[in-house]
Amino acid sequence: MERAVAFADLISANSTDNALMLRAIKLVGFGGREAGEVLIDMGDRHIGTLLGGRQAEVVDRLRNESTFESHQSRLIEIELGDVEAVRAGLACGGVATVLAQRISHLPNGFVDALAKRVPATLITDLDEGVIGSLVGIREGLFEQFSDRVGATIGERARQLHNQTRDLVEEYEFGGARVVIEVFAPPTKFVIVGSSGLSKAISNQVQILGWSSFTHDDAESAAKASAELGPNDALILLSHDHDLTTPVVAAVVAKTPQIYIGSLGSRHTQAERRRRLTELGVSVDSLVGLHGPVGLDLGSKTPPETALAIAAEFLAYRSGRSASSLRFGDGPING
Amino acid sequence: MERAVAFADLISANSTDNALMLRAIKLVGFGGREAGEVLIDMGDRHIGTLLGGRQAEVVDRLRNESTFESHQSRLIEIELGDVEAVRAGLACGGVATVLAQRISHLPNGFVDALAKRVPATLITDLDEGVIGSLVGIREGLFEQFSDRVGATIGERARQLHNQTRDLVEEYEFGGARVVIEVFAPPTKFVIVGSSGLSKAISNQVQILGWSSFTHDDAESAAKASAELGPNDALILLSHDHDLTTPVVAAVVAKTPQIYIGSLGSRHTQAERRRRLTELGVSVDSLVGLHGPVGLDLGSKTPPETALAIAAEFLAYRSGRSASSLRFGDGPING
Repeated sequence: MERAVAFADLISANSTDNALMLRAIKLVGFGGREAGEVLIDMGDRHIGTLLGGRQAEVVDRLRNESTFESHQSRLIEIELGDVEAVRAGLACGGVATVLAQRISHLPNGFVDALAKRVPATLITDLDEGVIGSLVGIREGLFEQFSDRVGATIGERARQLHNQTRDLVEEYEFGGARVVIEVFAPPTKFVIVGSSGLSKAISNQVQILGWSSFTHDDAESAAKASAELGPNDALILLSHDHDLTTPVVAAVVAKTPQIYIGSLGSRHTQAERRRRLTELGVSVDSLVGLHGPVGLDLGSKTPPETALAIAAEFLAYRSGRSASSLRFGDGPING
Repeated sequence: MERAVAFADLISANSTDNALMLRAIKLVGFGGREAGEVLIDMGDRHIGTLLGGRQAEVVDRLRNESTFESHQSRLIEIELGDVEAVRAGLACGGVATVLAQRISHLPNGFVDALAKRVPATLITDLDEGVIGSLVGIREGLFEQFSDRVGATIGERARQLHNQTRDLVEEYEFGGARVVIEVFAPPTKFVIVGSSGLSKAISNQVQILGWSSFTHDDAESAAKASAELGPNDALILLSHDHDLTTPVVAAVVAKTPQIYIGSLGSRHTQAERRRRLTELGVSVDSLVGLHGPVGLDLGSKTPPETALAIAAEFLAYRSGRSASSLRFGDGPING
């Protein structure tokens, strides 16, 4: 289950007081299964899964330990034999390290951020609980670090957070065990206006592991766009200003700096900006508006144009120049 | 059948004297089938197909017309009813305009260029035969225009040729009927060194309509690279200089300006250039060598790196800057 969706459900369930957040931060065995699954347990029900449905066992053990009340964070090791594991739908057995916290002990804004598809990172000292958090991307990044977060850990947390994808890393640091977890909703493209190009963009987005949704009418386009976060993209292929202008105005008001790619001539772009200004949208808030959309690659076919769009989005999200790597002297990997 | 392969076969068959080149330059009907199929007929046998196997009929009609000998070019209209068409494997019937020429009447170097995967364009006056040709890409472009090629037609031919994909356009121009045909072998990537990234590059190349082949040993890598043309790419993922250096040296000797993308640190790149220079490869001939490979997009995952590589290749082939289109004032489409 996608983490962002789980957190949105949690908020709408409005029952965070007694809720636990559990996630597998380390897996050994399990046929190469990756760490990162998240489960939100609300006592009477849960969102998400852990270890193919073995969550009940973990949650029971946690809730029955009297000491848990007094701790903000808790580590549990779960060992599953091959037979048990296969019964739970896993490839084979292994040992899982599960980190649990009360939702009420998470930093301010953390759950809210994830529900809004904003990437959020936790730094947890396994003895002391959460000691730091990062929320947002680019210039909108908000950091809360306690004195226990050293310079090395802080720098590493920023690096991992900037990867804008789910990650877990564990450290031994000055006698403490520290875990950095990045919770980043997978990028979503909302495309307004279906065409051969919208199909090509969907194909391109799919092989990147992202998702895309195409809308043709104003109502569904506005609804889908309202759910976008700063890590997502709005792509306007329709030239109908009456359809697209209100969507753009709403999106930038809610999610400043979001990437918006807009097809059309320079004349169409000027007209779009004129209409947005008329609606009271400031020029400053249009920093993410990219029109004409895409990098200048000399693209000729729809798949090539889709490539130019995805490449521009990626460069914008990473704050990179898009010039050839061979001309730079900075790090090659983001 | 891929055109480039057909022309390579023709050359190896070494029987071009009496051969005809036929291609459908205009299709009406046929369920939206596109023009562009090519057939090379050598009297006793043929390479390629035309209209789902109806080539025998076209060829017979052409060879039986006594006037054909004295003309360099010949137009034939073929009408197929629905029943006939379906029998030949087509969706439905239609009218096809087929252009035929003797291979011996084609401009110098034309067949040879296509056999080497070099894009080539013909300008044919339907009464007078071939009046112009363009062969090559980028700075290596070679043009041969007769006085009959007007400025408008010449400019349009250059534009179409630069698209580096199969195209056919027909004009009425000063009382003459002129056809411009671009023959561009689809881009091929040869990747040296298999890994998660080579799979991601294959996926990326595939949705662009190109093809890719991955090789791990020196012999097959060298053999595959020897078949590359200027519209193709060689991607070096292996860090084994003993494997890759001779391949690069052979490729740039045969196909100057070909895009070569090379993975690895700036140290690896410097070492690669040192070894190439030692083999006698001049710095000037390494204009297409891109290392570290890819645009600076902040790519983090293999599919994102594959995107950065395909984007850099496209920009290089088109002679574009790869900056965002919104910052320029030139044409948006190549």
